[in-house]
Parts: sequence; C-alpha cells; structure tokens
Amino acid sequence: MEITSLQNNKVKEWMKLSKKKYRDEMGLFIVEDEHLIEEANKKQLVQTLLVQKGYHHSFVGLPEIIVTDEIIKKLSSTVSTNHILAICKKPIQQIEPKRCILLDQVQDPGNVGTIIRTAYAFGFDTIILSKDCCDEYSSKVIRSTQGALFHINIIRDDLKEQIQSLQKRGIKVYGTSLQGAKELQSFPQESLVSFVLGNEGNGVSDEILSLCDDKIYIEMNRFESLNVAIAGGILAYYFRK
Amino acid sequence: MEITSLQNNKVKEWMKLSKKKYRDEMGLFIVEDEHLIEEANKKQLVQTLLVQKGYHHSFVGLPEIIVTDEIIKKLSSTVSTNHILAICKKPIQQIEPKRCILLDQVQDPGNVGTIIRTAYAFGFDTIILSKDCCDEYSSKVIRSTQGALFHINIIRDDLKEQIQSLQKRGIKVYGTSLQGAKELQSFPQESLVSFVLGNEGNGVSDEILSLCDDKIYIEMNRFESLNVAIAGGILAYYFRK
Repeated sequence: MEITSLQNNKVKEWMKLSKKKYRDEMGLFIVEDEHLIEEANKKQLVQTLLVQKGYHHSFVGLPEIIVTDEIIKKLSSTVSTNHILAICKKPIQQIEPKRCILLDQVQDPGNVGTIIRTAYAFGFDTIILSKDCCDEYSSKVIRSTQGALFHINIIRDDLKEQIQSLQKRGIKVYGTSLQGAKELQSFPQESLVSFVLGNEGNGVSDEILSLCDDKIYIEMNRFESLNVAIAGGILAYYFRK
Repeated sequence: MEITSLQNNKVKEWMKLSKKKYRDEMGLFIVEDEHLIEEANKKQLVQTLLVQKGYHHSFVGLPEIIVTDEIIKKLSSTVSTNHILAICKKPIQQIEPKRCILLDQVQDPGNVGTIIRTAYAFGFDTIILSKDCCDEYSSKVIRSTQGALFHINIIRDDLKEQIQSLQKRGIKVYGTSLQGAKELQSFPQESLVSFVLGNEGNGVSDEILSLCDDKIYIEMNRFESLNVAIAGGILAYYFRK
C-alpha cells in the first residue's frame, strides 16, 4: 500500500496522534527513531510501519505502508530526518506492581522519560503517574526513555489509591521532601520499596506525603533542591535490586 | 533611558547574544527569570536591567533601561512572558579547582545545566567543560542550573591538561565507563575527588579514559546506560562533601 497525499484520511488520523486526547482515544502513539521502533517491536507493539519510498529497513514481517518524505516530515516531532515511523498500540499492563516509582504531577516530558529510563535500569517494575502528570506517550517522553517505556509497567491512576494498595500488600512507600524528612542514609537499603517524586516546582503534595510511610531527604552540601529526575536517580540507585 | 525601537543599535547588539559566538566576543549573556536575575545579582554579574515600561521590580541600585514589550519578547528565548531581562557579564574564574566534574563533549543544554545544579548542591567547586561541550551561557543551560551557574567555578579548556593539573596536585580523577570499570561501591567515599562524564551517545572518549586514575561503573540491575546527568547525580551524591 502506498499513500502520497497529505489529505489522505489515514494521514489525517495519524496527525491527530500528536495530541494526548487522540492517543488516549485511539490507544495508539507514534515512535520515531529506528532503535526505538526496534524496542517497541520486541514487545509486539508495532501496528504499522510508515516507510519513506525507496528506504530500506531491517524490520521483517511487519505491516507497512509506503509514504512520501512529506508525510514522514508532517508526522515527525523533530526536525531531524526520519525515514521510517511506527504507529504503535499502547501495551496492556497486567503485572502486580511491587517496586514502583510514583510521580505526583511531574510535568516535564524530559524528566518523566529520564525517570522511566532510570527506573528500568535499576530494576523497578512499575511507574505510577498521577493523572495530571504529562503524557508518557508523547514523542519527547518516548525519546528520553530510550525505549525503557516499552519494558516497564506503566499505570496512570489516582496516587492515593495506588499507595494504599501497595501498603496493603506490605510494601513501604516513601515520599521525598525537603522538610521534616529523614536522611536517605538512615534508611535500610532494601529492595521491596516504592517512592514518590513530586512536581518540579512544588514537590510532592502534602496530601500524598501524609499517606507515605516515611519521608526521605537527600543529604546535600547546602540547602538546595535537586532536579526531580536527579533525586529519582539517587533514590533508584540506593534502593536498587 | 528608554528604548522603543527594535532597530535601535543596542537592541541589535543584544539580539546577537542568542549566539555563542557573540556571547564569547562580548563577554555578556542574557538572564531571563526574575529569580535567576536575583542569583546573578548576588554575584554582581548584572550589567544592565531591561525593564518593560510600567513594570515594577524589586532590584535596587542597578543600571536600567526601559524598553517595550516587543523588545523583551524579541530578546527572550521562551514563549513565556518576561517583564524584565538582565544583560550580565561573564564571571572571572579564579579559584583553584579541587572537587570538579569534568564534561567530555556533553551536548544537551538540559544535561549540562542539570549537572551544574547538582554539582553545586553536593559541594563540588568547579565544572570543567571540554571545548566542544554546549555553551554554558545559553538560556536553556542557565534555566536548568536554577542559578547554580553563578555560584560555581566554570572552566572551558582542554580536558587533558586539566586532568593532569588536578593529578599533579594529588587529586584523583575518575572516568565513567560501561566497560572495564570497577563498581562504584568499591571506591572509598572520599570527598577530594573529581570525575569525568561523557557525551550522550558515546560516553567518555578513550583518550580521556586512559588518563584517568580509575574507571567507575554504576551498578545496574540490567545492562543499560544511564542518562549522563543521572549518572552525574549518583556520583556527585556518592562523593558528596
């Protein structure tokens, strides 16, 4: 199959995937880099490849549509040259979360993506995003995860319910806070823990902190705040499996 | 003094400050957020404030020029609304570096800025950038540092010379590497150390690694790579003062 017109109905549908609303409605998202498409393919998430006419790729046995350079450009989020894109289906999450990083209103796609990448590297199994976090299927998040997004369980839900559910199953949930918190080094380095990271400007909300088993403070040389992904990286390493 | 025209010569000069070349030539850079201007002012770096007509600010005793909304917009790097900008002079670096984070070809402004912010929080005194790192005075870097840029020593130089100079003064310099490196936990947690972080795609170059006293590997649950700022955060915390 070949599509050459930007006015084609399918192209118009795919263009909508730059918006969260339509990604949610259709359960689809776009993956842009060839190595990221490879990662998505390992999990059978690729629905259709869009391949620039004349471009040779190494994916075998996937449905593909030949498109023009212009269509690829229109569907790409970056100015860098793509020759191939993948329309992917969102995975169905079904494992029981044990080692989680919970995100309370984290807004920056680069931060969310980097936290997902880091969580995967240190053996966390689940990322739980509050409903007002930025969308994990935006192109910027996908790129920042370096593909880890496809290999980790992702839940978007009310954090209060998720915290209580973890606690009911005997898993400690820690909040991060600059006030009234204990130094990280005073916590046992056990692996069956979950922790909450907060909004870039305001940190973890008081309501969520009050539900946590304990509050962690990362010891610093001077009173400063850390970038949320950096705080997450230090905690994920500390509680690594 | 008041300037109302985009064609004004001063405005044209300031517009050039969006480019590294001119920032280097003039020794000036632009700071955009009010809380960042405050941080720059603590170090007497503000040369001139550009204030939107009718806007009231809290800076006292600084030279200022009243400008139009249009001029502020033209000089701003973001779409968010600024009412005040500061033309700042680059600081003169004069302390002897002891605890340094060295950056080998780190390209992403967000990464460089976050590393500077983290280094400051954990008591490092100097950031040494290889000549091909991205410019530390770009608006994106300044924003990511959250003002830490003005409180830490910054050197842009040949890394080889800088590593040798640190070593001559008895300071150990560690490289980060995924291959042939020792686990982080096997290093003593001493504070008089420096370490090198590498390019987003390629890591620290072999030439630089060969000069290092030792190579560090951050223990992970699976063979992955970490975002360079995350790796930096974990090391900076481990070797914190």
